[in-house]
Amino acid sequence: MKILLIGATGTIGQKVQARLAETHEVIPVGHKDGDYQVDLGNKASIQSLFEKVGEIDAVISTTGMAAFAPLNESTNEQFALGWNNKLMGQINLQRVGRAFVKDGGVILLTSGMLANDPIPGSASISAVNGALNSFVKAASLALGDKLRINTVSPVFVKETLEMMGMDSSSGMSATDTAKAYQAALEGSMSGEVIDVRDYV
Amino acid sequence: MKILLIGATGTIGQKVQARLAETHEVIPVGHKDGDYQVDLGNKASIQSLFEKVGEIDAVISTTGMAAFAPLNESTNEQFALGWNNKLMGQINLQRVGRAFVKDGGVILLTSGMLANDPIPGSASISAVNGALNSFVKAASLALGDKLRINTVSPVFVKETLEMMGMDSSSGMSATDTAKAYQAALEGSMSGEVIDVRDYV
Repeated sequence: MKILLIGATGTIGQKVQARLAETHEVIPVGHKDGDYQVDLGNKASIQSLFEKVGEIDAVISTTGMAAFAPLNESTNEQFALGWNNKLMGQINLQRVGRAFVKDGGVILLTSGMLANDPIPGSASISAVNGALNSFVKAASLALGDKLRINTVSPVFVKETLEMMGMDSSSGMSATDTAKAYQAALEGSMSGEVIDVRDYV
Repeated sequence: MKILLIGATGTIGQKVQARLAETHEVIPVGHKDGDYQVDLGNKASIQSLFEKVGEIDAVISTTGMAAFAPLNESTNEQFALGWNNKLMGQINLQRVGRAFVKDGGVILLTSGMLANDPIPGSASISAVNGALNSFVKAASLALGDKLRINTVSPVFVKETLEMMGMDSSSGMSATDTAKAYQAALEGSMSGEVIDVRDYV
């Protein structure tokens, strides 16, 4: 498959690229690096990306910005970042991308375990992830047999926890996390929230 | 309890008001009617409402606008309506309202079954409802013992289905739906998604 991988330069994205590149053609997209660049918070930038790349078999997003902040101190701008970037940005990958993904293709987004297992400071991220989990269920209904759409729900990534000086024992390596993206890419499910812990 | 009921003039809100007014003091708030008015999509309007009303024991929202539209035809404005009004508006009830709700009080929001059981045209509403379900879990963590927060998740209301000329056999009456709001108000749960079908 010809796969547009958005977030390819991130911690998870790098491992997804390495894993999928063994058997697929992966086009890496970053915010500043990669073969192409995109600003996920800007629909025109997404439109421009797809027009440059043309027809593909799959879109995978391993990215999206949202803010961690104590709920009492969260600003309007911090909430808006999550709505505009991680949530609407990934929804726009579906809205813009469906015209460029071949019939029978697949769109994979990324939400996360904070939707159901919040931690202090995660309120806006939890909301964004919950929204994405529900969105793919609804979008799958609308796409019918034409395209599949799923969201992968990662747990904390070991490398990220280590980088932050935190206990990484409850995390999952980015290499293991990448297995769920491959399963969701090559499987037949649609409208599903893919828990990475089910694919290690 | 002294309860600020936002959406009191709506189909569900009217029945919640009737039910709770038997044993509580209910202050009805509407968009244009009620004892006070609020524009849920405008944080300054919410701030102004709370300042006028002063200290209360509970805030209940039975309202929030979001757009039904086929996913392929959904506009940016339709998505934004749901983010700004039903989602961020209700989140702002918590953000602004926490300073006005007495310790031990409760904030009740409204999401809906479309989070988990989408129908054609519900993509943005499903996302909003999923976000609210996850938000209250995260917000409950942040509020600790000070305040409870829950969201009631209604199914389609019989009266609404009948008004739209649709089969209402799978719906629940607004009168029955109101029972879940009372249970969530008077119970001890926090961070919960209250399925109205569990309280009939």
